[in-house]
Amino acid sequence: MRYFLEVSYKGTNFNGFQIQNTGKTIQGEIQNALLKLFKDPIILTGSSRTDAGVHALQNYFHFDIEGAFPMEKVYNLNSMISPDIVIKRRVEVGAEAHARFDANTREYKYYIHQSKNPFIQDTSYYYPYTLDWDKLNAATALVLGRHDFSSFSKKNTQVNNHFCEIFKAKWYWENEQIVFNIRGNRFLRGMVRALVATMLKVGRGFFSLDEFKSILAAHDCSSADFSAPGKGLFLVEVAYPLEVITPS
Amino acid sequence: MRYFLEVSYKGTNFNGFQIQNTGKTIQGEIQNALLKLFKDPIILTGSSRTDAGVHALQNYFHFDIEGAFPMEKVYNLNSMISPDIVIKRRVEVGAEAHARFDANTREYKYYIHQSKNPFIQDTSYYYPYTLDWDKLNAATALVLGRHDFSSFSKKNTQVNNHFCEIFKAKWYWENEQIVFNIRGNRFLRGMVRALVATMLKVGRGFFSLDEFKSILAAHDCSSADFSAPGKGLFLVEVAYPLEVITPS
Repeated sequence: MRYFLEVSYKGTNFNGFQIQNTGKTIQGEIQNALLKLFKDPIILTGSSRTDAGVHALQNYFHFDIEGAFPMEKVYNLNSMISPDIVIKRRVEVGAEAHARFDANTREYKYYIHQSKNPFIQDTSYYYPYTLDWDKLNAATALVLGRHDFSSFSKKNTQVNNHFCEIFKAKWYWENEQIVFNIRGNRFLRGMVRALVATMLKVGRGFFSLDEFKSILAAHDCSSADFSAPGKGLFLVEVAYPLEVITPS
Repeated sequence: MRYFLEVSYKGTNFNGFQIQNTGKTIQGEIQNALLKLFKDPIILTGSSRTDAGVHALQNYFHFDIEGAFPMEKVYNLNSMISPDIVIKRRVEVGAEAHARFDANTREYKYYIHQSKNPFIQDTSYYYPYTLDWDKLNAATALVLGRHDFSSFSKKNTQVNNHFCEIFKAKWYWENEQIVFNIRGNRFLRGMVRALVATMLKVGRGFFSLDEFKSILAAHDCSSADFSAPGKGLFLVEVAYPLEVITPS
């Protein structure tokens, strides 16, 4: 049977979501526990590959298993894996459901604080500079809709299609933090952090709005070679069509 | 001139507030930076000595210095000390003002979470057991007012007076966490954590309300030999009479 696992994690102590040759990963940590639990290797397919230090309030895996995967096993899993990761639920899905390909939107939040704060060091970027909100908002408006985002993608990614459709993008204050919130059908590798870093340069006056437009229009991964630190970034939601989540 | 320093800190990486023979302390960290800044040793007198792992949203020190201590020096201090500590302000006070003796109330919050949560591991106690809120509230009512709290004090404390007056004590839900909130004129060493641990035993049914009453009445530091972990505890406010904070 095929299951989706909903997970949340603090990425600080991990070398990202997907298994790598070196370092602890979210996927590796959960697969190791599943191996102990079922005495059989289980391969997870993730929805969204977050980078080192990036967090998730919600992310999904799918995997196949013979027989059922009861909630008791989820409790077991949670007690076996790092306190940095929590499995929130497991959903039985159809045999064709795919955590990555079936997801129709992903939503991210990037957190920034402007005064020293000991309690959010791992989950927010300390950026104590004055920002011009009019410029920030004007740049943000330019990314809405369907665009080729190659300029905000990491070099050497093996993707052919660089088009993403952005449904929502906005900057606002949430309590004592500044948030950049973006939702789209898909994101290229490093795209949110490159957008944040480049927009911050616009907000500080280092780039004009026209320069921002040119970078977006260049469709060249070397044109926006900036990246905001991973620790400020949260994947907050991955959404699926109802028929994927509801087994037939 | 005498100054009060208002500080906030995440206690996770410190062996408490007050300088010890071993380990990093909040006081030690700030004094080291002051020594570098003024080339002269400056001794801080703290308001409330938090234990290892305990946090503060607000705590105070006083110290004496020749000449003035402008806000620029506060900015310098903040850039020199650990990201776990922030100096929030400095207040010039009268020559007799005393951070410890003049404080007339202290307020603490103890945070508990009942579902695994990767983001509050350092600042909340994971306690996934069912609690009887009626019993919890009944025990809480018993600590209001003026009592000898010897039973909830650590052994070997060098205090003669064990009376504390409790103005507020309550349990409630705050978002996804349970909070024990207590305000009093003073607290004995380890008192809040001993109260929390003992009340949790009442809430789970391990102690009756009468047993809780007997422990409080025993006035014996070995009668409630329980302690909730430091990481859930926050000193949230230290209050002074207006005439102390306002220099004459």
